[in-house]
Amino acid sequence: MVSEVPAGLPGRVRVVGTGLVGTSVGLALTRLGVEVSLHDPSPSAMALARDLGAGRLATPWDAPPDLVVVAAPPDVVADVIRRELAAHPGAVVTDVASVKSVVLRDLAASGADLRRYVGGHPLAGRERSGPVAARDDLFDGRPWVLTPAQRTDPEALNLVRSVATALGATVSTMGAAEHDEAVAVVSHVPQVAASLVAARLRDVPERAVALAGQGLRDVTRIAASDPGLWTQILAGNAPAVSRTLHALRADLEEVLRAVDALAADDHAGGAPGARAAVAGLVAGGNEGQARIPGKHGTAPTAYALVRVLVPDRPGELARLLQDVGRAGVNLEDLRLEHSQGRPRAVAEIAVVPAAAATLLAALTEHGWTVHG
Amino acid sequence: MVSEVPAGLPGRVRVVGTGLVGTSVGLALTRLGVEVSLHDPSPSAMALARDLGAGRLATPWDAPPDLVVVAAPPDVVADVIRRELAAHPGAVVTDVASVKSVVLRDLAASGADLRRYVGGHPLAGRERSGPVAARDDLFDGRPWVLTPAQRTDPEALNLVRSVATALGATVSTMGAAEHDEAVAVVSHVPQVAASLVAARLRDVPERAVALAGQGLRDVTRIAASDPGLWTQILAGNAPAVSRTLHALRADLEEVLRAVDALAADDHAGGAPGARAAVAGLVAGGNEGQARIPGKHGTAPTAYALVRVLVPDRPGELARLLQDVGRAGVNLEDLRLEHSQGRPRAVAEIAVVPAAAATLLAALTEHGWTVHG
Repeated sequence: MVSEVPAGLPGRVRVVGTGLVGTSVGLALTRLGVEVSLHDPSPSAMALARDLGAGRLATPWDAPPDLVVVAAPPDVVADVIRRELAAHPGAVVTDVASVKSVVLRDLAASGADLRRYVGGHPLAGRERSGPVAARDDLFDGRPWVLTPAQRTDPEALNLVRSVATALGATVSTMGAAEHDEAVAVVSHVPQVAASLVAARLRDVPERAVALAGQGLRDVTRIAASDPGLWTQILAGNAPAVSRTLHALRADLEEVLRAVDALAADDHAGGAPGARAAVAGLVAGGNEGQARIPGKHGTAPTAYALVRVLVPDRPGELARLLQDVGRAGVNLEDLRLEHSQGRPRAVAEIAVVPAAAATLLAALTEHGWTVHG
Repeated sequence: MVSEVPAGLPGRVRVVGTGLVGTSVGLALTRLGVEVSLHDPSPSAMALARDLGAGRLATPWDAPPDLVVVAAPPDVVADVIRRELAAHPGAVVTDVASVKSVVLRDLAASGADLRRYVGGHPLAGRERSGPVAARDDLFDGRPWVLTPAQRTDPEALNLVRSVATALGATVSTMGAAEHDEAVAVVSHVPQVAASLVAARLRDVPERAVALAGQGLRDVTRIAASDPGLWTQILAGNAPAVSRTLHALRADLEEVLRAVDALAADDHAGGAPGARAAVAGLVAGGNEGQARIPGKHGTAPTAYALVRVLVPDRPGELARLLQDVGRAGVNLEDLRLEHSQGRPRAVAEIAVVPAAAATLLAALTEHGWTVHG
């Protein structure tokens, strides 16, 4: 198998931790012809990963690996890395933990050989976890941040970069601290906010929850995530999460003061500045939201939306998208909006603005009820 | 036209305010054969609504309407209702404002004839606004809350209920205060939270925003909403929004204390209770999120997810969904997950669990790369 491995990739990789990410790494590397050995403290998780095709089980008689990928929970990851560095003195060791500073600090404190360690974080989590949720394309087009330490050997960095690139990820390098600040804002604090909003739904009557719309569904989707994992992530990145949460809290205090003033004002026309404060928050949200990159990592594009009524029967959506394809129009994005209590959905099709008129005409001709 | 109007519906309806909701009401009622006259302080908005087919322009010589639908901004809605009640003494008047207590209180204070007023709120907002975004199916399957006052005439309530039902909405009645508490939790505070999270993105470097994933996109989607409208909504529902925001702030304070303790702890193993507090928040979010109703207003169902790689070319998604239809399997939901920097998407198809194996086999046979 080793002869088939693409240039620049390691011939033998040891994966420690066969959850969602570790198993996905194993699946993807095996597909590329790399020899993968698997290890996990849970024999059943390890066997399942093997049965899924992520590699073979590690044994004490294995030939030394070129690379060790540590995909252990954040709480124990530094310990596992230290052990793997010691056990495999010829190997580069990387990890996939979503927090980086604390791991690096613990490793440095333990006197580990940092020349052979390359911190890494593929941003490829899901609400689901475990080897069953693993996919060999999990990293396809996802960001994968590498956080080399000052002492990290450039060759070690190159090896890990080759692997992440071969797995389809978009690789960038930054310092551990910069990484942690970034994910606090784009991932960890959004998780906290989603949980805070969802937690409010526990105490309201059924009749109130029945008024939920797509907005609430979107805001709270990630609130379904695993409490155990997220406690480790938030604890591991506590300093950066704290800074961002304090900033968010300051904004919240301002809105709360404004809303309280408006509530107390009782239409007396007073509460000066309160409305401006509320409008300022929503406008600030507009600005921040507009910075989020769109599809394919490019800047967000203003797509034109074409809305089509789709009967909720097998094959109808297929027939629609076939007609879209026949019109020669590329669908940039698709959102299905289901209606409550009615067997009909609205498909919102995003296309480049220049294609919208063509699409509208073509779909109308095919008998679809279309709204531009 | 009047003879074609379905039983129970008014023959003549006057729509005041031709934004998204008013124009949509006009479009839907016109389709049902109801005679609709349109009025708006903006002549261009009014003309656009007419050209879209929402009705004809109102004139001083119009025959008296049976029903007036006031679709004015929250700030002025009570005044407009009062004026319409006085100008059309034989008509029932309803509104569509997303806040209800403040409107009712202002009307009562003005001595308006509350017997003919029926408060209403179709939960059918979009991030887009204005007559151009209007759709005759905007209310299809959406909740429409009616908030009759004690003095509201039962006949008046029935008339408005008939209209909302004919427009495809799922109608419920509740008190104005109960309505306002409910929308504070399921709509207004989620909007504030989305804006708070999105506002944090203003100050971070481009490299950090580039790490954004689907989770952040979902949490912040509604942060793109109109600041002017939302200021009126939040101001109009300030007491209920304040209560829910204070409860959310209390949860946030608890998490913040925990995160600060963890940040200060520096791995000394202390910070007792801090991890439990963080886990408690995420678990509470799990609970609340699980209460949100799924498609068709039913309780959330555990669908099985089938993941298929879709090349990003015209017609590919159509071909896939054609194959789904041919397998005789009904698609319950569809999410397209785009990859950054790669011309390939993952289509996540939700089906009832019993259908997943059939679908997997059928798609594999048709040559798709499928993950169960």
